Amino acid sequence: MADRQGLAGALARIEQVKSRRRGRFYLRDERITLSHGSGGKATHNLIEGLFAQAFANPVLDPLDDAAVCPLDGVDARLAFTTDSYVVSPLFFPGGDIGELAVYGTVNDLAVAGATPRFLAAAFILEEGFPIADLRRIVHSMGQAAEAAGVVIATGDTKVVERGKADGLYINTTGVGVVRSDAAVSVAGARPGDRVLVSGRIAEHGIAVMLARDDLAIETDVASDTAPLNGLAAALLDRLGADVHCLKDPTRGGVATACNEIALQSGVAIALVESAVPVRPDVRGACELLGIDPLHIANEGKLLAVVAHQRAEEALEVMRAHPAGTHAALVGDVLEEPDGMVFVRTGIGGRRVLDMLVGDALPRIC
Amino acid sequence: MADRQGLAGALARIEQVKSRRRGRFYLRDERITLSHGSGGKATHNLIEGLFAQAFANPVLDPLDDAAVCPLDGVDARLAFTTDSYVVSPLFFPGGDIGELAVYGTVNDLAVAGATPRFLAAAFILEEGFPIADLRRIVHSMGQAAEAAGVVIATGDTKVVERGKADGLYINTTGVGVVRSDAAVSVAGARPGDRVLVSGRIAEHGIAVMLARDDLAIETDVASDTAPLNGLAAALLDRLGADVHCLKDPTRGGVATACNEIALQSGVAIALVESAVPVRPDVRGACELLGIDPLHIANEGKLLAVVAHQRAEEALEVMRAHPAGTHAALVGDVLEEPDGMVFVRTGIGGRRVLDMLVGDALPRIC
Repeated sequence: MADRQGLAGALARIEQVKSRRRGRFYLRDERITLSHGSGGKATHNLIEGLFAQAFANPVLDPLDDAAVCPLDGVDARLAFTTDSYVVSPLFFPGGDIGELAVYGTVNDLAVAGATPRFLAAAFILEEGFPIADLRRIVHSMGQAAEAAGVVIATGDTKVVERGKADGLYINTTGVGVVRSDAAVSVAGARPGDRVLVSGRIAEHGIAVMLARDDLAIETDVASDTAPLNGLAAALLDRLGADVHCLKDPTRGGVATACNEIALQSGVAIALVESAVPVRPDVRGACELLGIDPLHIANEGKLLAVVAHQRAEEALEVMRAHPAGTHAALVGDVLEEPDGMVFVRTGIGGRRVLDMLVGDALPRIC
Repeated sequence: MADRQGLAGALARIEQVKSRRRGRFYLRDERITLSHGSGGKATHNLIEGLFAQAFANPVLDPLDDAAVCPLDGVDARLAFTTDSYVVSPLFFPGGDIGELAVYGTVNDLAVAGATPRFLAAAFILEEGFPIADLRRIVHSMGQAAEAAGVVIATGDTKVVERGKADGLYINTTGVGVVRSDAAVSVAGARPGDRVLVSGRIAEHGIAVMLARDDLAIETDVASDTAPLNGLAAALLDRLGADVHCLKDPTRGGVATACNEIALQSGVAIALVESAVPVRPDVRGACELLGIDPLHIANEGKLLAVVAHQRAEEALEVMRAHPAGTHAALVGDVLEEPDGMVFVRTGIGGRRVLDMLVGDALPRIC
């Protein structure tokens, strides 16, 4: 009974916070640039300045990873999410576009507190694309779907002329059922909460960059592409409505994800730089690129914001799960400055951590 | 009670027919060609020869326009469908890619006997694309969603470099709730049934071709792009389980749609050429192109297969609806030759009507 009230209260609070949200994004550009696809600031300007206005409706919440859709006469909430995948190259250490397209969408459902169920898969193929490569990618999708426990229920194929695509693009759209005990939202973080990350960050972005040969360094960094629904379910099983927010920090990295949470929840987030797990060779590659690992895409990491008193327990749950071996407590939620994210550095200083601006790593997913 | 038994019987029959279905498609190509995107024979080879095998599961039925997904513990069946839109040009007489992307997906839900509810919209944008054009397209989507009574619930934006797309591509994925009184399927046609089409065919394909300036003729042909959910609902309201199959004859036209029905239902379909409504100028343009209007795409026409004794009533319902003013009875379902479609011509002859082979009109939707 207390649990039910806790859940209802949490859901009501999220609605209240969302309705207070202020528009901070404006679309002033005349042409699309690569940064509109970065997942960072320009993407938000495009979404809030155009799509959110044209499609305005109570279900659309462009900054949550999945929409939660009520169905008349049905006692369940659906989670619904879509992503197009344009990663280049199509095959990279640790994965390929097919696996990425399945796990990416599964993860967007998982962070909505949903059990992923059905995927739709749509292909835009470039004339001349080798069927052998398509076969490899499609088989990889089939295996990923099986690993994540989802069914690819429907699909579509279009072909465009040579030079009008780049091999192939895949769209996957997912439907899941929101767990009745879940009250997670990007607007759900509260002052006092603690922030966890499920493992070492920035590996997907660096692996893809290395596969492009843009960096003349040798490492064995592989993409972290993985399904997160098992890990998210383990957290919700144990902590229920004390999990306030889940997010997979993909394009724009942990920094952009934290900024979205801070903005939508009307809170500040303070990250402790030294607590964020990063492989040394990944850190080295980031330094070569001149990009903060916090701005680099992950495809198999979970960011969780949980009630202060349950944080150690959450860490324990994460570390006990194969997808969370390197989990760490990385920050705290503060009351103000509302909408801001900053990083506490080793020497006692702090710096503001903005969303990704521009796009140093286009077509990362 | 009798109705309920009729519905259950119809659903059971569809499952039985589906399970008998034989694979007639093989993928032997080494590279993707434009014909793999035609919606015709090569597309079926790709789907059955690759996707259907890699994704094999009981829900996936690659030749139905939408998958029907059961949800544990929920007393409703979801319809789920996806389509990517790559039409060229983006704006054409009678519509644009945005409107097309909304109505196309709404229609795939409608022909599954579902009430369309939620859409996801994903954009792949080419660097340099004018924001003014994007704004026009997005507003057109918003208006189309309102007209069709669906909510755009979630979305995604990716950007690719100049020369890696053709302005923009849109994917829309739709979720609807299958009407409890509907038992329609591409496998649902039975010998003795009659075939209706809701109006004049081939207008979308011809309008897009004319917009490309590929034909040096002047007409006022406009795309028929329109939502079909109202018309489909009117038919189901009146005829219930006596509507055996609904289909929107898009890529590959009425001919390909009829071939899918014949193959999946294990029946033959005989169309009467003179009964199929075609505008004279559309027929003229088809003759110039050397393509049968039955092979040309429609985006606002409904093909219905209904029980023999309800056919006149179905025609009456269609004609009374604004989307079906020019509806006509165009053919009959026969027992054999199983899987074959033919056309009865004016002079008492008959010719076999195959699926679209090759793709004379690429990127029509």
